[in-house]
Amino acid sequence: MILCDIGNSRIHFYDGKEVKHLSHEEGLKLYESEKVGYICVNDEVKSRIKRFSKWQDVSNPSLLKSDYKGLGIDRIALSLAICDGVVIDAGSAITVDVMEKGVHLGGWIWPGVKAFKEAYGSISAKLAVQIDPCISFEKIPKDTSSAISYAVLGSIKEVVQTFAKSKRVFVTGGDASYIAPLFEDAKIDELLIFKGMEKMIKEERC
Amino acid sequence: MILCDIGNSRIHFYDGKEVKHLSHEEGLKLYESEKVGYICVNDEVKSRIKRFSKWQDVSNPSLLKSDYKGLGIDRIALSLAICDGVVIDAGSAITVDVMEKGVHLGGWIWPGVKAFKEAYGSISAKLAVQIDPCISFEKIPKDTSSAISYAVLGSIKEVVQTFAKSKRVFVTGGDASYIAPLFEDAKIDELLIFKGMEKMIKEERC
Repeated sequence: MILCDIGNSRIHFYDGKEVKHLSHEEGLKLYESEKVGYICVNDEVKSRIKRFSKWQDVSNPSLLKSDYKGLGIDRIALSLAICDGVVIDAGSAITVDVMEKGVHLGGWIWPGVKAFKEAYGSISAKLAVQIDPCISFEKIPKDTSSAISYAVLGSIKEVVQTFAKSKRVFVTGGDASYIAPLFEDAKIDELLIFKGMEKMIKEERC
Repeated sequence: MILCDIGNSRIHFYDGKEVKHLSHEEGLKLYESEKVGYICVNDEVKSRIKRFSKWQDVSNPSLLKSDYKGLGIDRIALSLAICDGVVIDAGSAITVDVMEKGVHLGGWIWPGVKAFKEAYGSISAKLAVQIDPCISFEKIPKDTSSAISYAVLGSIKEVVQTFAKSKRVFVTGGDASYIAPLFEDAKIDELLIFKGMEKMIKEERC
């Protein structure tokens, strides 16, 4: 069975060997006739794939011990994958979830790197700059580009560190390369969500 | 002379007694024939007011000791106003500037509260929530609304605290009420920018 994670803006497939990141249109067209186990946070796509006879929703939210209201199924899968530590998914949004001994303690959400850039650009053309993943936190910024990179990435660094002092940090998602350098020994793993989905299928708790 | 601060989305007038916050259109119409000293970060408005014979640009950027490249004239005025401490302007953008013994050490920029909300809404309708200025930082969030308020306001709290451990925090701008509660003894002062402008006019350094 091919595993499929349907996000807000992209769709991701894993066939046990490699991960393919596609647009919704491309992905649905390419895999419509395959045997697929999926999770989905996008309501519009969810209603379209109901007619795909070989696709099966493998969501199993009750497997995760959590009293978070409205936790997305993608965050549930990621939390099940790590069982202990902090997992950061840097996609359309940057979600952070904290797991301790198999229990989900909670989490929080920033806009994704692209949404942050668009937010700055919507305020003033002068603020429409690239976010620099190599920004230094040793000194206070002295130009617009550094000032923005520092605010976005410094926020993630400081807030996660406050709650993850001794916890292992796992990073996944398309913008993982922006986030991982913020933490010593952070582990990038693009298979995390599929590992969580496999646990859902096997009914394997943390 | 009436003082006028022209921002990216609003225009603010101070007649020595009270501050008026208006849209660009309203403000220009109402004060066109008055004697006005202004600073302006909005290029489109700047070109329009060149024909206002009684309006005078009071910008005096060289008054501030700073080697920040491209520092907005509004941030220069705010920095001149405080001379020592951290000044946070919560408007279209949330700017932070750090002053030490009359010298501007640098600063950084987040999107404003409105731009943050729009950024979340652009990712998913599920993330289009209000930011709660009363969010607690004692526990990890367990619902979407808290998760977003915590990320936005927690970022500002943590990053500013890292660089302002013993510094006085001054807060100004339309969303000052979201920001001030994050810091013990933060001082809200909506006149700060006009105090900086008065220093510009008098050529009074820190």
